[in-house]
Amino acid sequence: MRLLLLSNSTNYGTPYLEHCASAIDEFLGKQRELLLIPYAAVSVDYGKYEEMAQNALGVFGIKIRSIHRYDDPKEAVRNAEALAVAGGNTFRLLQLLYFEDLFDVIRERVSDGMPYIGWSAGSNVSGISIRTTNDMPIVQPPSFISLGLIRAQINPHYTDRVIPEHNGESRLQRLLEFAELNREDCVLGLPEGSWLCLESDTWCYKGNEKLVVVEYGQSVRYLNQEEASKFLNERKFHNP
Amino acid sequence: MRLLLLSNSTNYGTPYLEHCASAIDEFLGKQRELLLIPYAAVSVDYGKYEEMAQNALGVFGIKIRSIHRYDDPKEAVRNAEALAVAGGNTFRLLQLLYFEDLFDVIRERVSDGMPYIGWSAGSNVSGISIRTTNDMPIVQPPSFISLGLIRAQINPHYTDRVIPEHNGESRLQRLLEFAELNREDCVLGLPEGSWLCLESDTWCYKGNEKLVVVEYGQSVRYLNQEEASKFLNERKFHNP
Repeated sequence: MRLLLLSNSTNYGTPYLEHCASAIDEFLGKQRELLLIPYAAVSVDYGKYEEMAQNALGVFGIKIRSIHRYDDPKEAVRNAEALAVAGGNTFRLLQLLYFEDLFDVIRERVSDGMPYIGWSAGSNVSGISIRTTNDMPIVQPPSFISLGLIRAQINPHYTDRVIPEHNGESRLQRLLEFAELNREDCVLGLPEGSWLCLESDTWCYKGNEKLVVVEYGQSVRYLNQEEASKFLNERKFHNP
Repeated sequence: MRLLLLSNSTNYGTPYLEHCASAIDEFLGKQRELLLIPYAAVSVDYGKYEEMAQNALGVFGIKIRSIHRYDDPKEAVRNAEALAVAGGNTFRLLQLLYFEDLFDVIRERVSDGMPYIGWSAGSNVSGISIRTTNDMPIVQPPSFISLGLIRAQINPHYTDRVIPEHNGESRLQRLLEFAELNREDCVLGLPEGSWLCLESDTWCYKGNEKLVVVEYGQSVRYLNQEEASKFLNERKFHNP
């Protein structure tokens, strides 16, 4: 399996996909055609989303085409060289993945080696379920169960920070509550600017900030690149 | 109907329920017994939650008893003088309201005049659905549809502020995306420290900050106490 799971599309103060464009280029290797699934977009037009991604990745000779341009989305995935699932609202993304009945074809193709790139909501849906999304549940998908490409929960945009002088739980409190009610599931908190990569059965973690691991009955772990990569390879969250 | 829908339990830097204890006292009138539904609690023990509420409201002679002390939760609601639905995780709260099959009995009793007090998640579930909660979907309730005591969506802890130098949507962006996909539903954003009150068919809004109204096709409205009360009475979001 080949997975590139990015916390976010946009680092604070930099253009769309800029911080990860070289990583995407490197991850894709020879493949230069990327099928974009922009279903998480609510307030941005799919065509605009495609253009934003094209602008960011075109410099590497990568060609983006959005799935909304195809009559048969399933067929589009079946024939794709590589897949990029973009960010936005995770509930909306999952709703439309169910609606277009794309689960099986995505799982099959990814399991056969098609590169899967996700950022934000697109990383979220690669996990077991969307129960650790930060998004507002503005629409109800048929289920919270997501693609399950990895046997873990992703929390993108992980941060320890909160809105100053505002109440409501911190991110960590939320994830600890998740762990309390979901004792079997491991959460990988990806700070902005970081990503997970899986190639040839080998995981690596890249990020200036540490990967945060939350599991029931364990202290919260904050792992640097080396520690995180070791942890991921020991735990083997993918289906070999 | 008698509803007191509070944005939050705790204003920044003040003890639990302190900012709204007199409002609760006044709203309850002669009724001094309050059945507490603490199902939104995940990391706090139900007994502890009861104690916290008792400590805050005992000074007014209000007696709190949590529903977990009763063998038959439905019977407890049937016999309650007044109901308080506490904050925490909205998905967990809704899951357990469904599990204990409390929808009908709560709706009946509230429609018959039993006072309903909610804060945070407890206010959220008084609306049409929980699609405008800020909480993490750590468990999956059977549906997002909630009590529907009012024909609007509540967004508690409303704020325009964001985590500094962090990406992800602002609250308003999220609610505008909600409106885009749910064009019939009106969102009432309650800033911390504010609440809605309905008594004898008359609404009022209390808060130092303005009520935020988000609806599809309309500019976002920021209404002071007087304007908000007028708006609520014109729109009559309750079922008369």
